[in-house]
Amino acid sequence: MLSEHYRGMLQNKSVIREMCAWGAARAAQIGKENVFDYSLGNPSVPVPQSFTDEMIHLLETQPPVALHGYSPILGIQSVRQAVADSLKKRFGLPYEAKHIFMTTGAAGAVAHAVRAVTQPGDVMLTFAPFFPEYNPYINGAGVELQVVPANVEDFQIQFDAFEAMLGPNVAAVLVNTPNNPSGVVYTTATLKRLAELLRQKGREYGHPIYLISDEPYREIRFAGVDGPYVASMYENTLTCYSFSKSLSLPGERIGYVAVNPAAEGADVIADMCGQISRETGHNCPPSIIQLAVSKVLDQTSDLSVYETNMNLLYNELTSLGFTCVKPGGTFYIFPKALEEDAVAFCNRAKQFELVLVPSDNFGVKGYFRMAYCIDTEKVKRSLPALRALAESYK
Amino acid sequence: MLSEHYRGMLQNKSVIREMCAWGAARAAQIGKENVFDYSLGNPSVPVPQSFTDEMIHLLETQPPVALHGYSPILGIQSVRQAVADSLKKRFGLPYEAKHIFMTTGAAGAVAHAVRAVTQPGDVMLTFAPFFPEYNPYINGAGVELQVVPANVEDFQIQFDAFEAMLGPNVAAVLVNTPNNPSGVVYTTATLKRLAELLRQKGREYGHPIYLISDEPYREIRFAGVDGPYVASMYENTLTCYSFSKSLSLPGERIGYVAVNPAAEGADVIADMCGQISRETGHNCPPSIIQLAVSKVLDQTSDLSVYETNMNLLYNELTSLGFTCVKPGGTFYIFPKALEEDAVAFCNRAKQFELVLVPSDNFGVKGYFRMAYCIDTEKVKRSLPALRALAESYK
Repeated sequence: MLSEHYRGMLQNKSVIREMCAWGAARAAQIGKENVFDYSLGNPSVPVPQSFTDEMIHLLETQPPVALHGYSPILGIQSVRQAVADSLKKRFGLPYEAKHIFMTTGAAGAVAHAVRAVTQPGDVMLTFAPFFPEYNPYINGAGVELQVVPANVEDFQIQFDAFEAMLGPNVAAVLVNTPNNPSGVVYTTATLKRLAELLRQKGREYGHPIYLISDEPYREIRFAGVDGPYVASMYENTLTCYSFSKSLSLPGERIGYVAVNPAAEGADVIADMCGQISRETGHNCPPSIIQLAVSKVLDQTSDLSVYETNMNLLYNELTSLGFTCVKPGGTFYIFPKALEEDAVAFCNRAKQFELVLVPSDNFGVKGYFRMAYCIDTEKVKRSLPALRALAESYK
Repeated sequence: MLSEHYRGMLQNKSVIREMCAWGAARAAQIGKENVFDYSLGNPSVPVPQSFTDEMIHLLETQPPVALHGYSPILGIQSVRQAVADSLKKRFGLPYEAKHIFMTTGAAGAVAHAVRAVTQPGDVMLTFAPFFPEYNPYINGAGVELQVVPANVEDFQIQFDAFEAMLGPNVAAVLVNTPNNPSGVVYTTATLKRLAELLRQKGREYGHPIYLISDEPYREIRFAGVDGPYVASMYENTLTCYSFSKSLSLPGERIGYVAVNPAAEGADVIADMCGQISRETGHNCPPSIIQLAVSKVLDQTSDLSVYETNMNLLYNELTSLGFTCVKPGGTFYIFPKALEEDAVAFCNRAKQFELVLVPSDNFGVKGYFRMAYCIDTEKVKRSLPALRALAESYK
């Protein structure tokens, strides 16, 4: 019989996907240049030429049997070493290759990290607003995700609510900074207080509470924003990274889990991730992509366009009267809608050829997300549409 | 707390890995050319140049943002269409793009197929000898794997035992032809009888029994061997394919599930696989590899070396008195050991610099596997070592 569970999941329609489909259909009607599609977080700037050159170099010079051969289940050793060296140099933690597990993007990284540090039946906490795909990663491990309500003042952490929810059955806490969808970066003060609370409760309950830090937007931060490397603030941290956004390679599925060398179980967690892979048939990111990325670890695409776009949108939105926390990174902004029902608001926005995503799936009601990974010229052209949308509420 | 389940899996040492590690260590001592390492199924012939050319062409001519962009969760639409067209042309079944789900190799394909057509608590059957990684793919889905004993006469199916085990709680049956480790190909007669039995029991129990056909070795078949396309024999078939062996691309993690258009649920199974991916964070094989492979679907590496090697080994082994079923495909051969304890036999083989894999993990005792995906010249040089090993038992 077909799986009832997975067949049932097909019924849950994704609002993001519906909005995106509307945008595509509308573009086919009136031309792509006339639709202001802010629905999808697909990078808009090219990968550095050095990556492309490295790929071609590998294809032209390496013996194909070795180049395309099986990667060890934890990743190619030289690649793991290069990632460890880069993190050590940049963030000062004594990572070794044994702490690195290569993954298919941050999705694969988070799904593995969750399974490594929980038992079925455990609880995990995350903070609203949050990326809705955390639900399947966590529920698929037999773990319950509970969501700490948003601190809508600044989208830092609402510590009273968090502490009340941080019971002895909480195995791990998941943070995402810079944050999708709010664009907010957790400050030093936030992370320090978070770490102290996790340490205190861990001692009280007699087991470590792991921090899973989902960091695909780590390299997209704006000028002057305070936001330290999460693992440097708390020892029991599993850093989940993706090159999707920093190198504009989302389709090539490459990232890693980096286990803080000071974490409890640091010497076995990457090995355990390899065992998790065996059950899901995942078995490593592609060899050639591992090798090419390992040569450009400390590079990024030209990410400056995202800050330019953010400033344009933030200034316009606030001048139009929107309530909006200024993003410190990512390519998202998360303003309050002009009516309580965010879906109704986003549906009205379609009249102005604006494709926005309502906040409900992100665990907060009454907001909307704009993914501004599009050309700056188009952002500028969209500002009158935003103004017309705001005026329609007057 | 660290997951007890995955931490426990670390304790199960793989005999294949141990043998392989011994081979590598020995090669470091006496030189790689002096160790006859038959432990690993890593292809030994290069990918066709047309694949390499296509990769370079994509990198040199395609806009990087589109080339490296997210693949839809079921795979790139043009790639799914190309796979469907190729299968339709070659095997005569009316596949459409909607029946194809792109995966990270056959491992990903089988892991998804299992989850799509079972419920936790179900039973699946497979036939000894079998690839031991089926255990984690199936157990990881909460499903129990039961193994039908081997028919050691010819490694076709022992139907009496199979029928006795095919109870109403069996959701699916997993076959692997050409077979790892035996090299045997299921004949038309075997598959016909299998299909008839599955149909009969399906009617009797009131639910379809799915056939999951793991076919990474489909293109490696030897002259004159009878062995039809499995899905053409039984409607409720999910074909799990990998390009790892046919194109010598094991590290690039690319394959697919093809759902027989006549299968019960054919219109939703690929969609369900997409939902399964969401839980494991797998999310598609790499975009550039999907695109390049779609241009060389009907090509293979030069696979003739495997038949040459098989004939050399089969003739030598049988002349030395080994009991051995002649392989019809793959790059494996699976002779009976010269003592009951296959591990002891393989340990003795080390004295002759032969790296063999004992059969215990494959669900049969007293046999050993040789993976002859190595140079023919080396196979020839290994024959005296095999002879010396055999003579040591006289």
